[in-house]
Amino acid sequence: MSGRIPDSTVRRLSLYLRMLRELGRTNREFVSSHELAGRAGATSAQVRKDLSLFGSFGKRGRGYSVGSLSNTLEEILGLVRTWKVGLVGVGKIGTALLGYRDLDARGFDIVAAFDVDAAKIGKQVFGLTVSPLSDLERIVKECGVEIGIVATPPEVAAEVAKSLGDVGVGAILNFAPTELQVSDCVAVRAVDIVLELEGLSYLLATARRLDASKTDE
Amino acid sequence: MSGRIPDSTVRRLSLYLRMLRELGRTNREFVSSHELAGRAGATSAQVRKDLSLFGSFGKRGRGYSVGSLSNTLEEILGLVRTWKVGLVGVGKIGTALLGYRDLDARGFDIVAAFDVDAAKIGKQVFGLTVSPLSDLERIVKECGVEIGIVATPPEVAAEVAKSLGDVGVGAILNFAPTELQVSDCVAVRAVDIVLELEGLSYLLATARRLDASKTDE
Repeated sequence: MSGRIPDSTVRRLSLYLRMLRELGRTNREFVSSHELAGRAGATSAQVRKDLSLFGSFGKRGRGYSVGSLSNTLEEILGLVRTWKVGLVGVGKIGTALLGYRDLDARGFDIVAAFDVDAAKIGKQVFGLTVSPLSDLERIVKECGVEIGIVATPPEVAAEVAKSLGDVGVGAILNFAPTELQVSDCVAVRAVDIVLELEGLSYLLATARRLDASKTDE
Repeated sequence: MSGRIPDSTVRRLSLYLRMLRELGRTNREFVSSHELAGRAGATSAQVRKDLSLFGSFGKRGRGYSVGSLSNTLEEILGLVRTWKVGLVGVGKIGTALLGYRDLDARGFDIVAAFDVDAAKIGKQVFGLTVSPLSDLERIVKECGVEIGIVATPPEVAAEVAKSLGDVGVGAILNFAPTELQVSDCVAVRAVDIVLELEGLSYLLATARRLDASKTDE
């Protein structure tokens, strides 16, 4: 494996793994690149290319071993262990994430939650006590937080992300509707609900403009 | 404007618009492609190329007019009107979305919420009464729902998405951790929190493997 793997490839690896896990639950032993492709919205050539980046897995005529390819993808994606996650911003989205038990089952354990609101600090939210943001450094170190979730209002998101990076958190998932500029040592992914909705409204508006121009002809 | 604009370009248009709106609030009149680029993680050449797809906007030496480019991007992205949104699945994520007032302010008004759980049906959640999923067709038509949000467990997400498409909803935002296969007439975008976290764990695991191999040398 050499060079940086594009985000789009890593995303497909996650989707292949999901399908492999489902097949594993039904005791399937082998899967074709064609079947894996369907799930990830890819082509079988792309599946073979993606997987070849990490070694040689498929057996001609039989496809990929469900069990061993699952294990390899879990290894590659860092899912053979649990990651400790710290959440900043216990608002509506933050609270929903604290209650999202699936995260834990997928290997992401939220071990600390922070807010600046005195009304929230000290309260239990889904079994976790909300800590003051001023304790970020101490608690991140004590709990060994490795991934930070930023679920604050957009105005303070950049500052919070910088604090997380400064205290050694290497990866951030950003829910605030703003782009985060952080140091190159911190990996950032974003979940931007408004951006996705705007992508849909663009497509709907475009389709309607096309319909209108056809009616005009 | 001709041909299909890639999703990545549409995303950047949303980010440019965010920056333009912020600048508008500070009464700035002009902005350079360089400044717009910084916000969207793009280059100024890319900003110029993206915007040139839709016409000629910049003035040499002055940059883009904040007000007129905002208006144009709002028009392109279909944000000059409010879109009616129906939400299926009033669990933790669904409830958080119903309480996410920002959506309304951004032009996405959740007008209907559905669930199959008898304990939830008829209850008010942030001012909206939860309807039985069996009333989907009638309510989608009565309320004029244009965008569907799928926030159900993954096992039923595909079925729900198909129902939404069947009753004329043209766009779906999927929060369920599964790929949706819908007809070509329905636009789909996904918010997949676990997928984003796995992208981060991949990067962290890769960095650690590199560190370990350096220590071994």
